[in-house]
Amino acid sequence: MKATVLGSTGYTGMVLLRLLAGHPEVDAIIPVSSSRAGNHLLDFDAGLGKGPSRYTGILEKTAETNGKMVTVEEAEKHSSDVVFSALPHLASAEVCRPFFGKSVVIDLSADFRITDSGTFEKAYGTVPPRPDLLKDRVYGLCEWYKEEIKRGDIIANPGCYPTAALLPLLPLAEKGLISGTLITNALSGISGAGKKTKPNLIFCERTENTCAYAPGKTHRHTLEILQEIEAKNSSLDLFFTPHLVPLKRGMAVTTVGELKPGTTPEDVEKCMDTAYAETPFVDIRKNRIPETRDVWGSNRCDIGWHIEENRIFLFSVIDNLMKGASGQAVQNMNIRFGFDETAGLPLHGKV
Amino acid sequence: MKATVLGSTGYTGMVLLRLLAGHPEVDAIIPVSSSRAGNHLLDFDAGLGKGPSRYTGILEKTAETNGKMVTVEEAEKHSSDVVFSALPHLASAEVCRPFFGKSVVIDLSADFRITDSGTFEKAYGTVPPRPDLLKDRVYGLCEWYKEEIKRGDIIANPGCYPTAALLPLLPLAEKGLISGTLITNALSGISGAGKKTKPNLIFCERTENTCAYAPGKTHRHTLEILQEIEAKNSSLDLFFTPHLVPLKRGMAVTTVGELKPGTTPEDVEKCMDTAYAETPFVDIRKNRIPETRDVWGSNRCDIGWHIEENRIFLFSVIDNLMKGASGQAVQNMNIRFGFDETAGLPLHGKV
Amino acid sequence: MKATVLGSTGYTGMVLLRLLAGHPEVDAIIPVSSSRAGNHLLDFDAGLGKGPSRYTGILEKTAETNGKMVTVEEAEKHSSDVVFSALPHLASAEVCRPFFGKSVVIDLSADFRITDSGTFEKAYGTVPPRPDLLKDRVYGLCEWYKEEIKRGDIIANPGCYPTAALLPLLPLAEKGLISGTLITNALSGISGAGKKTKPNLIFCERTENTCAYAPGKTHRHTLEILQEIEAKNSSLDLFFTPHLVPLKRGMAVTTVGELKPGTTPEDVEKCMDTAYAETPFVDIRKNRIPETRDVWGSNRCDIGWHIEENRIFLFSVIDNLMKGASGQAVQNMNIRFGFDETAGLPLHGKV
Amino acid sequence: MKATVLGSTGYTGMVLLRLLAGHPEVDAIIPVSSSRAGNHLLDFDAGLGKGPSRYTGILEKTAETNGKMVTVEEAEKHSSDVVFSALPHLASAEVCRPFFGKSVVIDLSADFRITDSGTFEKAYGTVPPRPDLLKDRVYGLCEWYKEEIKRGDIIANPGCYPTAALLPLLPLAEKGLISGTLITNALSGISGAGKKTKPNLIFCERTENTCAYAPGKTHRHTLEILQEIEAKNSSLDLFFTPHLVPLKRGMAVTTVGELKPGTTPEDVEKCMDTAYAETPFVDIRKNRIPETRDVWGSNRCDIGWHIEENRIFLFSVIDNLMKGASGQAVQNMNIRFGFDETAGLPLHGKV
Repeated sequence: MKATVLGSTGYTGMVLLRLLAGHPEVDAIIPVSSSRAGNHLLDFDAGLGKGPSRYTGILEKTAETNGKMVTVEEAEKHSSDVVFSALPHLASAEVCRPFFGKSVVIDLSADFRITDSGTFEKAYGTVPPRPDLLKDRVYGLCEWYKEEIKRGDIIANPGCYPTAALLPLLPLAEKGLISGTLITNALSGISGAGKKTKPNLIFCERTENTCAYAPGKTHRHTLEILQEIEAKNSSLDLFFTPHLVPLKRGMAVTTVGELKPGTTPEDVEKCMDTAYAETPFVDIRKNRIPETRDVWGSNRCDIGWHIEENRIFLFSVIDNLMKGASGQAVQNMNIRFGFDETAGLPLHGKV
Repeated sequence: MKATVLGSTGYTGMVLLRLLAGHPEVDAIIPVSSSRAGNHLLDFDAGLGKGPSRYTGILEKTAETNGKMVTVEEAEKHSSDVVFSALPHLASAEVCRPFFGKSVVIDLSADFRITDSGTFEKAYGTVPPRPDLLKDRVYGLCEWYKEEIKRGDIIANPGCYPTAALLPLLPLAEKGLISGTLITNALSGISGAGKKTKPNLIFCERTENTCAYAPGKTHRHTLEILQEIEAKNSSLDLFFTPHLVPLKRGMAVTTVGELKPGTTPEDVEKCMDTAYAETPFVDIRKNRIPETRDVWGSNRCDIGWHIEENRIFLFSVIDNLMKGASGQAVQNMNIRFGFDETAGLPLHGKV
Repeated sequence: MKATVLGSTGYTGMVLLRLLAGHPEVDAIIPVSSSRAGNHLLDFDAGLGKGPSRYTGILEKTAETNGKMVTVEEAEKHSSDVVFSALPHLASAEVCRPFFGKSVVIDLSADFRITDSGTFEKAYGTVPPRPDLLKDRVYGLCEWYKEEIKRGDIIANPGCYPTAALLPLLPLAEKGLISGTLITNALSGISGAGKKTKPNLIFCERTENTCAYAPGKTHRHTLEILQEIEAKNSSLDLFFTPHLVPLKRGMAVTTVGELKPGTTPEDVEKCMDTAYAETPFVDIRKNRIPETRDVWGSNRCDIGWHIEENRIFLFSVIDNLMKGASGQAVQNMNIRFGFDETAGLPLHGKV
Repeated sequence: MKATVLGSTGYTGMVLLRLLAGHPEVDAIIPVSSSRAGNHLLDFDAGLGKGPSRYTGILEKTAETNGKMVTVEEAEKHSSDVVFSALPHLASAEVCRPFFGKSVVIDLSADFRITDSGTFEKAYGTVPPRPDLLKDRVYGLCEWYKEEIKRGDIIANPGCYPTAALLPLLPLAEKGLISGTLITNALSGISGAGKKTKPNLIFCERTENTCAYAPGKTHRHTLEILQEIEAKNSSLDLFFTPHLVPLKRGMAVTTVGELKPGTTPEDVEKCMDTAYAETPFVDIRKNRIPETRDVWGSNRCDIGWHIEENRIFLFSVIDNLMKGASGQAVQNMNIRFGFDETAGLPLHGKV
């Protein structure tokens, strides 16, 4: 099993390399970076241990490129079973062009997430880069599209906000236990913005600071969330407000919604338990509001809730770089290639 | 002008001492602490500069107690014009007993915030400590009860969550521009929990971690917010979820509500501008979602909003130790004693 | 292979459980806690994923106690091959009493680190708890006492400061390339103080704050460092100053020393390269001053240096909970029981 | 009194504006920025309160430019008593050219700090920009050059590392109580690097991370420290290692040195007490190792020490943006213009 990683130098690319290095089914990795091609991974990323070659994972598995990052052109020669794209939105689909049809493509960007062209344009300000491929792509929310993922050749890895918001909502939406308008608030760690060097992302601008940003349907993630909720229950509406909080990793989402008249707490519990009875990475927490630390470094999404009068408060947490990006991408690979769904993926959060 | 501070060793007490030390109208301060009586302030709080005596503020103004913290009994002998209580809920009213009727009491605890006994009991699990005094107390939300504060002898300093949530809501509620059910989410820095040594407040439990807690009407602050909203507009309901974020100081509140049919963006702008045309510490930010850093160390509340379809997103930020506690307490003193409302209070946020 | 963990509820205990859960050679774990005996691990530690039982590690391996923490008395019945003690100094040796002679004991406390009774007393204010066992204990600095560890039945796991300070110093001390007095400064993340609920460890006291503490030979770790340096080179002296920095995990040590006249940069490089040619967890970084982030979550110690005039600046970083505590403890187990030294231990730092 | 601020948009410029806005002797401020000329201050810096015009300080005092930032050319027309340059090294002296001889120039950059051309070149890689002015410039370390500052027309505001390192060292150096080679370690908050948008300064690269950088005499600040120590005692040498710690503001310096034979703890105490008997902003802390939080937002430098055998450990803390930059610049203005040395400068650290 050989895996190519496009965009190896960003945070999601770096996490992907670590996960693949420790993955029992992956034998070879082709690390790609246009800006750093020719650089040795160990020179670029000091977090990688040099170690004795027999066990480092990274060095053994990147032997084909001598541990170096290569260009896309070079990567084409090393034909891979799977190509992960950790490239920016609107660049990704284009760079992936030579791999479609040859490798399974798991795209961590937004290029294949939204299937309606008008909606995509509203969200990203331009037409979808490859409208021709949209009908065949699969939405890689693992717990909800498992069968489709098994057969997918282009898998759109969901956004971090949609993943954390949808996992608690979809069971209730599908069973019709909630109604009306949902109000969703999300808190995101700063790595959600990637490794970009932007003035508002420097340490002194983000530490001891928090704020909302991009509220409502102006935010691209809202449209992705709405697309998926609508697929289960067309009567729901949702307003979304993300916030930046001074964490490196972590995402917490709180949604307040109205329960359908007559819905009991037992109905909710049963609905959740049923939806996630067999999922290794979604944990239902009954007497606890989950905290982001619980899932730091883990591929889990933990879910809790609180019911009061006719309202339900839904709480979910993920590590935005894991279940919100690279971890879910590897979970998608596991499902697609028939491996154990949990292979190479951490279950426990870091202390 | 002489001021007594009960609870000088907590965060709000320490901030009060600093503000009073620099206040142009305060000549003498009596710092009180039951646990630390007899200790010199400079030995307890290394943040206080020793400096040449002529200008330190703290040392000059605490000359009556030789710079030492004293017991409540001793404090009674130094009759003060104003007594600030920075004591915990349910302890405060009792400790203030000897000062009622003699000094103006500004209580930073919750003991006098809620006027309905049943509501108080729901929020705090016990009857109000001094129900006999509730009818005369004033709710010290400075921008909304200025006239009452001028005549008040017991001023209930509002909670931090209610202050930040109410300031953007009250203008719209009073003018009837919003309707139905409001969904309010708040992010609080950790100093909101005070200086308590609790297992879940140690550094390693809170850094790189965020979570919701005490959601809905189970949380005492919700009931305080509802009491005040109802006073302006009885048709509104509100669900509230606070979150802990790894900040020392800072509070950001996001409320999503429905606009009354026919309400235009201009109506909202005019309503806000009118409500806060003359207030030194509420800033309306028109093209900006405010950030907590903007008001760090300042007594300001900054307000912004976003309108989409028939929904309004309201954003407000305060420094929970300033406008959310000690700053507003001093603002109450300024109003009550006829000083310039801004005397001794910082306007600008720290860089 | 069965492992008992004494002190399962502290940070080092929690990290040990995670490492053992993922360890390929460990089949069963007995989690012990006097204060929490009877509690299920999943109820205590929300970071642990519930997952399908087949793969969680934790649940499978704690089947003997039904996933619950047990008392020391109960633990005695489940005879283990190895007992890790993550208990506090001065309590540890006593609680371990029933296990000596029956299991290999790896003690993460200081009780067996210092072999000279007078020195121990100077450092800890009391006589060593088990002086009778000191002659047989092994100092578990893996890279320097590997042969002894293979035969040790009581292994004193080194302190975090000594581990980080000694690894760059010992090669130069042993070869006589440095002389005179060493000045060592260390920066430690807050988890080094454990999970104690102390007033100076709460979030608001440590964030946006840094300071030196316990400087010089008054600090227990200095004496442990000196014991080990003296074993290699009795002519060296060392003054040590630790500092607290607002990190959760991470330790950086900077030592400035004098090079023996005539020592060249090549001599230093060769000395370091030789000492750590075969060690999986010590990385020599030639053109880089290592950062604590490089080793966050990894069992590595990264070493760099800078030479100027006749001085050498030595830089080393570890994760204080890994190579500085639980990771090195598992490394000791691996060596002692003849497993691959790297089994179950992460090599790469977290992004 | 009119003050011009060159470089109003960086952190030190922003702090200068706040300090001058609250300064009792400053009537008018000319804020200068080449990149933002024409922008209103309130639009640029959301931390500034709009407030009623009578009391905001900022708006009143910038009336000459209508609250807007202006170009250097425009600033020349508004002739000022004092010009603060918060511009980068090597740009500052050039931009200040039109103001020399007309206004007192207080330069926060390094352009006038080092008087020896060869040393400057070693430190900054190029010749000093204005060697002709070096003989007349004054080194603005307020506590040591007060008489010179009173007569200075070009005042070189010291670097943050030199300020924090020199204040505890100079008394002992001058009295000859220390000897030999000093080893100095410093921890700096990230704002010491300014508001530059550099890849290694983004939040995710600095939070949960610490490291040494630029050790030894390769670092420009070492040469500045050595210049000043040599001026008092030519027999001393010093090796310096700065570290970055995840703080916004704060600097802690630890120096270990050898006491001259026969020096007693009483000698040290007397030396320190005498040196700083009359200084409002240097506090001697006898039984405390100072913490950076003690001086957060204050213009103080707090000093403590520990003596062991023949070694002294010196501890000092400052807020790098205050005593380490803008605060000391205003202190220099106060001294130069005969104001109270403490005018407009905060003494107490923030809680």
